[in-house]
Amino acid sequence: MINFDHAATTPLRKEALEAMLPYFKDQFANASGTYAAARQTRSAIDRARRQIAEAIGANPGEIYLTSGGSEADNWALVGCLRASTGRKRIVTTKIEHHAILSPCAMLESQGVEVVYLNVDCEGRVDLREAEREINADTLLVSVMLANNEVGTIEPVAEIAEIAHANGAIMHTDAVQAVGHIPVDLHALGVDLLSMSAHKFGGPKGVGALAVRSSVKLLGLILGGSQERGLRAGTENTPGIVGMGEALRMAVKEMDEAARYTRTLRDDLAERLLALPGVRMNGSRTDRLPGNAHFSIKNQDSSLLLARLDMAGIAASAGSACTSGITERSHVLQAMFPDEPESGWADLRLTLGPDNTAEEINSASAALQRILGASKEST
Amino acid sequence: MINFDHAATTPLRKEALEAMLPYFKDQFANASGTYAAARQTRSAIDRARRQIAEAIGANPGEIYLTSGGSEADNWALVGCLRASTGRKRIVTTKIEHHAILSPCAMLESQGVEVVYLNVDCEGRVDLREAEREINADTLLVSVMLANNEVGTIEPVAEIAEIAHANGAIMHTDAVQAVGHIPVDLHALGVDLLSMSAHKFGGPKGVGALAVRSSVKLLGLILGGSQERGLRAGTENTPGIVGMGEALRMAVKEMDEAARYTRTLRDDLAERLLALPGVRMNGSRTDRLPGNAHFSIKNQDSSLLLARLDMAGIAASAGSACTSGITERSHVLQAMFPDEPESGWADLRLTLGPDNTAEEINSASAALQRILGASKEST
Repeated sequence: MINFDHAATTPLRKEALEAMLPYFKDQFANASGTYAAARQTRSAIDRARRQIAEAIGANPGEIYLTSGGSEADNWALVGCLRASTGRKRIVTTKIEHHAILSPCAMLESQGVEVVYLNVDCEGRVDLREAEREINADTLLVSVMLANNEVGTIEPVAEIAEIAHANGAIMHTDAVQAVGHIPVDLHALGVDLLSMSAHKFGGPKGVGALAVRSSVKLLGLILGGSQERGLRAGTENTPGIVGMGEALRMAVKEMDEAARYTRTLRDDLAERLLALPGVRMNGSRTDRLPGNAHFSIKNQDSSLLLARLDMAGIAASAGSACTSGITERSHVLQAMFPDEPESGWADLRLTLGPDNTAEEINSASAALQRILGASKEST
Repeated sequence: MINFDHAATTPLRKEALEAMLPYFKDQFANASGTYAAARQTRSAIDRARRQIAEAIGANPGEIYLTSGGSEADNWALVGCLRASTGRKRIVTTKIEHHAILSPCAMLESQGVEVVYLNVDCEGRVDLREAEREINADTLLVSVMLANNEVGTIEPVAEIAEIAHANGAIMHTDAVQAVGHIPVDLHALGVDLLSMSAHKFGGPKGVGALAVRSSVKLLGLILGGSQERGLRAGTENTPGIVGMGEALRMAVKEMDEAARYTRTLRDDLAERLLALPGVRMNGSRTDRLPGNAHFSIKNQDSSLLLARLDMAGIAASAGSACTSGITERSHVLQAMFPDEPESGWADLRLTLGPDNTAEEINSASAALQRILGASKEST
């Protein structure tokens, strides 16, 4: 299989699995115990927390472990609202992941005011609109660091400044960014940051919300006193250890991996853009290194993906989380509000450092064949 | 180490880890993808879902995977309230896990009425009080199937009947019960049931909420369309597969494991009860097979646990999730409201099928020595 769906999930790094295995075997103790074996797992979690913190320029005390990016995103929204006695307004964007948009819709049904900022045709948030909409009533601003469909990197630092000038809390969903591009919590000026281990070579089912100590936040999952009382539940020690190790490795190899992946991606994009009716979406400059996203005229997304599958190529139309949904993604609708929904195939090809130049050759040839054949048959 | 803290967590079954490993390696695809590799992980999740359903007499469509028991408990409460347009009252007990009590306190602060039922000195919920308190305003009744501290099995089927007679939804936190005693969703008559994989030989960081199709429930973690739109987030395939396999094995070996563990437990209890000032807490008949819980006069819990730790024995005073908290547990306070909080050491010893008769000998001798020495030194 040629894996061009790295944005959906990444292969688990061998080093991460190696680091996890002892905690699936002898070192299984519940980290909340008071005895020696429990103190050992506790110290493994502490080490992973330091690795995660270091990778994003945070303090270990600012890292709260979760079951993944979706939980972190939901928690950021609900946790701020639960803690707020005054402000209730949320400002976010039309292109967020559904892990932001769905809880926002739920909160709206509970009377919370939510504003959805527009984006330009490259998927970049409108800063002037952000200036207008973020005000003294705004509790929280949530803007993703990099879009999961088209890969555009958002001006989060600039928006954080606007948020702070208005006394609002700034959250960023950095699920697609962490481990792939440099992310520094303090340099970005964000107060809350979501991440997910399986997007950077770590295991599925674990993530984190970074929370600056100045933020008033209540828990989403309440109960035991884990994570300093803010996230209940027995710690997933192997998952946490795997996340720490994967992120440490991802950051260490980031420059080289990004350079390599970007070269492959640009090569692939160039070849696809030579085919008729192919348009590349998203920013050409402020973009995740592995992301290529195309709209292709007179094609059908499901059919195209099925043909790629038969050719041994794993790809997607957009977010993995909404696969099987046939209407055009909310991201593309926001970027191209005047474009007809049908008559296009949307194709996301997301590369990683495990892809090869040979795979680019072979996939390009397959795509040329499929798109050519498909044109003939219509 | 002699592991007498099985209620905190259990060793991961070898068979579960074996089943998980392929999904940490080649079969890493995101189960929401549309391509062949994704369909394979999807089918592994479906198989695990069937295993989990079969183990508790449910249909696979009634199993919703979560990150663990705490999430399942929080979800049951918040999910019912989010879906309710009328009733708001919750009836629960004074001896629930904090994963129920803490969200209840949060909901109370939002104006939800919560009633906490009393228990008798064996930790059994008062059925007459349940009859009085569950009424036509009651949205949800939540009573644990087996208490995590003293091991008492609650009359959940009887309470479910009362709940249903009043049109209320019945939830049970079965985290300590599933895999250890027979649990049948439909025989119990419960609508919602929480479980946690690492309590029955599965991995940490994965659990489930069983939801009967008649229940109106909204999601706690919203976003992608995973778990039929009710629980967002990329599926933790290895964790889910490990949970399914562990539960299948636990149910298969349940009778033998329970008989063996109960024999060891009774032997240990008999020896401890021969020591001066030792009382056993909880029901002697309706009790988890591995649970032994004692109050010991003129002892200090922290000191006792530290001495056991030095003797190589892992034990706890109560719930692992609140270790380090020095006041007497809410469970014992509810069972013995008139007993002074201090002057007692509370000691929970929870056994599993991996314990041996030799360990009982050695631990009994250690406890005799520690309690004897401690009495002399005071």
